[in-house]
Amino acid sequence: MAIQIGLVGTGTVGGGCIEIIKQHKESFLRHFGIDIELKWVCSLNPDEAKAHGVSDLFTQDYHDIINDPAVDIVIELIGGVSIARNIVVEALQAGKNVVTANKALMATYGKEVMELADSMKKELFFEASVGGGIPIISPLKHSLIANEISTVMGIVNGTTNYMLTRMSEDGLDYDTALREAQDKGFAEANPTADVDGLDAAAKIAILASIAFNSRVTIDDVHAEGIRNITPLDLEAARDMGYCVKLLALAHRREDGVDVRVHPTMLPLAHPLASVNGVFNAIYVVGDAVGETMFFGEGAGSGPAASAVMGDVLECARHLQAGIAPLVGCTCTDEVPFVPMEKLDTKYYIRFAVSDRAGVLASMANVFAKYDVSVHSVVQRGRQGDGSKVDLVYVTHTAREASVRAVLEDIVKLEDTVLAEPSLIRVED
Amino acid sequence: MAIQIGLVGTGTVGGGCIEIIKQHKESFLRHFGIDIELKWVCSLNPDEAKAHGVSDLFTQDYHDIINDPAVDIVIELIGGVSIARNIVVEALQAGKNVVTANKALMATYGKEVMELADSMKKELFFEASVGGGIPIISPLKHSLIANEISTVMGIVNGTTNYMLTRMSEDGLDYDTALREAQDKGFAEANPTADVDGLDAAAKIAILASIAFNSRVTIDDVHAEGIRNITPLDLEAARDMGYCVKLLALAHRREDGVDVRVHPTMLPLAHPLASVNGVFNAIYVVGDAVGETMFFGEGAGSGPAASAVMGDVLECARHLQAGIAPLVGCTCTDEVPFVPMEKLDTKYYIRFAVSDRAGVLASMANVFAKYDVSVHSVVQRGRQGDGSKVDLVYVTHTAREASVRAVLEDIVKLEDTVLAEPSLIRVED
Repeated sequence: MAIQIGLVGTGTVGGGCIEIIKQHKESFLRHFGIDIELKWVCSLNPDEAKAHGVSDLFTQDYHDIINDPAVDIVIELIGGVSIARNIVVEALQAGKNVVTANKALMATYGKEVMELADSMKKELFFEASVGGGIPIISPLKHSLIANEISTVMGIVNGTTNYMLTRMSEDGLDYDTALREAQDKGFAEANPTADVDGLDAAAKIAILASIAFNSRVTIDDVHAEGIRNITPLDLEAARDMGYCVKLLALAHRREDGVDVRVHPTMLPLAHPLASVNGVFNAIYVVGDAVGETMFFGEGAGSGPAASAVMGDVLECARHLQAGIAPLVGCTCTDEVPFVPMEKLDTKYYIRFAVSDRAGVLASMANVFAKYDVSVHSVVQRGRQGDGSKVDLVYVTHTAREASVRAVLEDIVKLEDTVLAEPSLIRVED
Repeated sequence: MAIQIGLVGTGTVGGGCIEIIKQHKESFLRHFGIDIELKWVCSLNPDEAKAHGVSDLFTQDYHDIINDPAVDIVIELIGGVSIARNIVVEALQAGKNVVTANKALMATYGKEVMELADSMKKELFFEASVGGGIPIISPLKHSLIANEISTVMGIVNGTTNYMLTRMSEDGLDYDTALREAQDKGFAEANPTADVDGLDAAAKIAILASIAFNSRVTIDDVHAEGIRNITPLDLEAARDMGYCVKLLALAHRREDGVDVRVHPTMLPLAHPLASVNGVFNAIYVVGDAVGETMFFGEGAGSGPAASAVMGDVLECARHLQAGIAPLVGCTCTDEVPFVPMEKLDTKYYIRFAVSDRAGVLASMANVFAKYDVSVHSVVQRGRQGDGSKVDLVYVTHTAREASVRAVLEDIVKLEDTVLAEPSLIRVED
């Protein structure tokens, strides 16, 4: 008796799943003895179901799936935290197993839905919520569990990585890079979730929760995006032997965990430094395994569907064997968060300032006032009319709160700073 | 009731396992509800057990473990295919589950031991047999199963990768690089298994068997090592935009699979190209997921023990849940092997030849005779006394059999070739 699947969402990823089932259903049975059948396809758009040749399975009402006692697994691929949340909750309550690619849901209501799944003794899989097709959640929940994980650090947003790659390699400015990413379909018309680091924040919340066995939600993540990054910053970084990536970082420290998303300068020899374009990669450090990295396409129909269907097949394998879920929520600890103000790291700060005497001195006074020690200051990119220069500061290791105070004071200096400063933390 | 472990082998990896259990036993229970206990430690060397503080568990006779009805999982870490094979077979026959790091065993007797495990309904895990701590076997057996895999390609031998990195970056010759690797403990006194590609051959046999659902043994793998590679080859490669890696390759083609190990020129932009030193990485291409790569430390106490203990914990999790093995042998197909002679690729060939008139013409005749089209020929590295030059040929795509014939004929040319030619296949 085949395991019956109800699919909700027939967009890019849902379409990919339908195609995988059509193409490989027979080999899943032959290679693994896993017998799955697509029973329902639900979306608001019958044309999408038609395009994939599954009109006969189509419904516009997800309740048809949840109310069908024959359905074993519900795949939720519509995203967001309103209807999607209802679908996941109602499916679990109805005794269905659930596979979702929904990062926002898992990073916001992860505790609620994981606990619901545990109490119903049903599976809730979400590999596709982070890193597209890259296996990362399963390795963290299985292969790597003999480790205490100290760091999870990733390039988990392909849009911004594409933009930064183009800005770095070809000197495009932010607006041009964004427009190009939009033209190519990598960025939404409203790019906020990508460029402001919110998409990455959801993903690192999910990874950190698993890696540290302690719940991290999207609201616990300090997120900064790439809007203030200019080609000048990327050029300056390269001259110093670094690249700039929008990193999602989660570190276990003595006093707790810190989880954040922001542009980061990485040494060019770091494994993440050569991850360019729309590729994603997640770097994990464990006390036994040392450094590992998981690399692949972070988005798109095929990669995301690979992850979703990997989960579906694993779930079907368990159902056929008649076994209860093996791994539910593993957030057994409550590790405190280290507030951002207490971060100690090195900083790259670029100020666009008036090109006049006294500016450097007055700025130096501010750094001194807050005891932020400057490693180097370099003047770069004098503009044509000579009225504006860029000053690039690199600090020694400093306390975030102090650096923030420096920035606040410097911005207030009379007739000095001409644009929003660019601040990039350095990960050595 | 804790799951009881019997460990055979207390060397580098076994010692790492003992330390992990000592350090993290409590957190395995708290985070995952997995309760394991080390009951026996077996080796020929009581001092190793003593060094890890487990003398009370020590035995020199592995039968003590196999005959103990309380033991649930046997860890085999002694390597080789004689006693190790007996241990694995006898343990399975006695109804124990087995975790091994033994690549030679799995690449040689994989069919036998997997079938035995299946027939006994016991687990046989072997993540640590390939890529040290890098999760790769579990992703191939779980996360990626929705894909048809077309390529598995990896740097799976840290010793040779270290040597090639030193030769490439610092101009060391082969002998110096080998001696250094031996001094640092990366290479054995007898380096054959590493430098001749046999270690890599065992590993790619294991990966290909899983990826293609068709048994590949070490004897099916064409293996060439790095003995003929010189710094000159690495320099020439770099000038052409390539690096040279000892790659283990497995490709699915229309007419079957080809599985081989040899020095390979890779474009510098390839994800594997920046994997340097003792690091390993495995690059996998699937029809849905596209390109993925798994990176990390390929050897050493911590990494290998991380993989072994990941398997042990997964096995214990299954035993506690009272479930039979979920995934046994998946070699359900019998895909034919494409013989090496039928390979079509580009070739880099360097000949050290006498520096005299007529050499280039007579060699050109041989290439023409076998219809191997030459893309470029460059003279490099004229020696001090002017008696010898190196000729570097790069061919267009050619048939392996023809290239072999070219080499055979050219080596026989009178008073021409002065040393074993260096042949490197090009992977674009």
